[in-house]
Amino acid sequence: MRPTLIVGSIAFDTLHIGGQSHPKVLGGAATYASLAAAHFGPVQLVGVVGRDFPQTAVSMLRERGVDLSGLEVADGETFHWEGRYSDDLSSRETLRTDLNVFADFRPKIPTAFRATPFVMLGNMDPTLQLEVLDQVERPRFVLADTMNLWIDIRHAALTDLIKRVDMLVLNDEEARQLSGVQNLVRAAADLLALGPKTVIIKKGEHGALLFQGDEVFSLPALPLSGVADPTGAGDTFAGALIGYLARANDLSGPSLRKAVVYGSVLASFCVEGISTQRLSTATSAEVHARFERFRQLTAF
Amino acid sequence: MRPTLIVGSIAFDTLHIGGQSHPKVLGGAATYASLAAAHFGPVQLVGVVGRDFPQTAVSMLRERGVDLSGLEVADGETFHWEGRYSDDLSSRETLRTDLNVFADFRPKIPTAFRATPFVMLGNMDPTLQLEVLDQVERPRFVLADTMNLWIDIRHAALTDLIKRVDMLVLNDEEARQLSGVQNLVRAAADLLALGPKTVIIKKGEHGALLFQGDEVFSLPALPLSGVADPTGAGDTFAGALIGYLARANDLSGPSLRKAVVYGSVLASFCVEGISTQRLSTATSAEVHARFERFRQLTAF
Repeated sequence: MRPTLIVGSIAFDTLHIGGQSHPKVLGGAATYASLAAAHFGPVQLVGVVGRDFPQTAVSMLRERGVDLSGLEVADGETFHWEGRYSDDLSSRETLRTDLNVFADFRPKIPTAFRATPFVMLGNMDPTLQLEVLDQVERPRFVLADTMNLWIDIRHAALTDLIKRVDMLVLNDEEARQLSGVQNLVRAAADLLALGPKTVIIKKGEHGALLFQGDEVFSLPALPLSGVADPTGAGDTFAGALIGYLARANDLSGPSLRKAVVYGSVLASFCVEGISTQRLSTATSAEVHARFERFRQLTAF
Repeated sequence: MRPTLIVGSIAFDTLHIGGQSHPKVLGGAATYASLAAAHFGPVQLVGVVGRDFPQTAVSMLRERGVDLSGLEVADGETFHWEGRYSDDLSSRETLRTDLNVFADFRPKIPTAFRATPFVMLGNMDPTLQLEVLDQVERPRFVLADTMNLWIDIRHAALTDLIKRVDMLVLNDEEARQLSGVQNLVRAAADLLALGPKTVIIKKGEHGALLFQGDEVFSLPALPLSGVADPTGAGDTFAGALIGYLARANDLSGPSLRKAVVYGSVLASFCVEGISTQRLSTATSAEVHARFERFRQLTAF
């Protein structure tokens, strides 16, 4: 089984959502992405946690097939984010960000991981994402995720990064912000012109769009009768996507489309539970059944 | 060829959009719906216009296959709506509504139209939509469109109407408003419980959802690199949908799904031109080519 290398944040999240508070639950872009990718094959996770990171979380990740030999344990506390969601879950407000040990994080890719052909650069400072690319050996496929903060304060580094990745994943508002273009078709064309072979625009409950050359694939999200916690859905989407591609070892158009569907399948599990609860317990049979639900949802 | 009976408003629209003004262009829910349905077979249009309604518009509708023997020409001026779109076309503001001859409109269905099996009740006061149902002879399929105004001020009549239709078509905000439920899956379940066999929720640039029993069909919109004028897109969608069903004479699940795709195809033409310009000139070959584009857009 081909592994996927995933680099990014590992965090505790304190979530205020649906009238309840969930203090210091497991979170972080790389955590969600790793758990999602692990549904498809082994994952090599590189990130940093503090001395407070619990053994239960380490064990859970290992049991799901995540290799933690690249997990750095630093003196201090784990990255902590606290946020409150609006009643309809369509927006959220950051109440507190304690970078803690993540403030000084410099990714160190273990020698054993440097030739891994599928690499996901989880959402973090693009200067760190570039440092990862400088350590790995010509990977076959690099996916980068980003966010509005880096478009604002690390524009030059982000542009450098985008030139060097195969697939850029971002949400609709970020695509508009980065390109300066309101229309998503033209925004995607501008982003493709920066270098990546594929651009994926995530639209949350409205699904996802894949752009490659003149080809466009549009997949709606699975309509869900209840959402518990949208945290990490985008990271989960990207992690499942690259995990599927690594397993398939196929970067053709049809394979990329299936990868988007698997990304959406895992994201649909992710939002059904608080933190990683539902994502980490979804079975292989459930994943395949939900893939078939996407077929029934979209077939005509 | 089985005809479709369409009842609703015929209007002049004054549009302020994309930095330009378009005074008194052809508009109205029944106009858009009729032009869309006419791509699939003959249309019987029932509505009212004033003495100012131009012969060129009458000729254009006739040439597209719209039977105007149910068009009432009343003393006075045609319904006129004036609105201004936001720069990104995501919202619009009504500047002026002159109901004119539409204020006293009472639909009179010609005897020759009363046995037409496919009936579309375009968006208008639900008391008028009910009057149409009282005049027709047990149609095989009735589609009703509505809007936020009637949910606010004609709630009881709208509820009566919904019990008597086969398909209710409305947008996402209207579905939430009418059901009082934020989640669209649960909102649709509540609306189905009111009586219609099928509920379709239009989401504009995010596509459309079809709910029937436990079945859900989700179709994204065609990603367009430019939108000239969104006016009438929802009416066009519904008109093409029922026009396709009348031609197919098939109300099975697969046929309903194809009808949603054809609705989206015609809506995509509609928004590419000001008023009905692009909708009324799209050829059969263009319609079929765009249906195939939807297959390529969504296949996996």
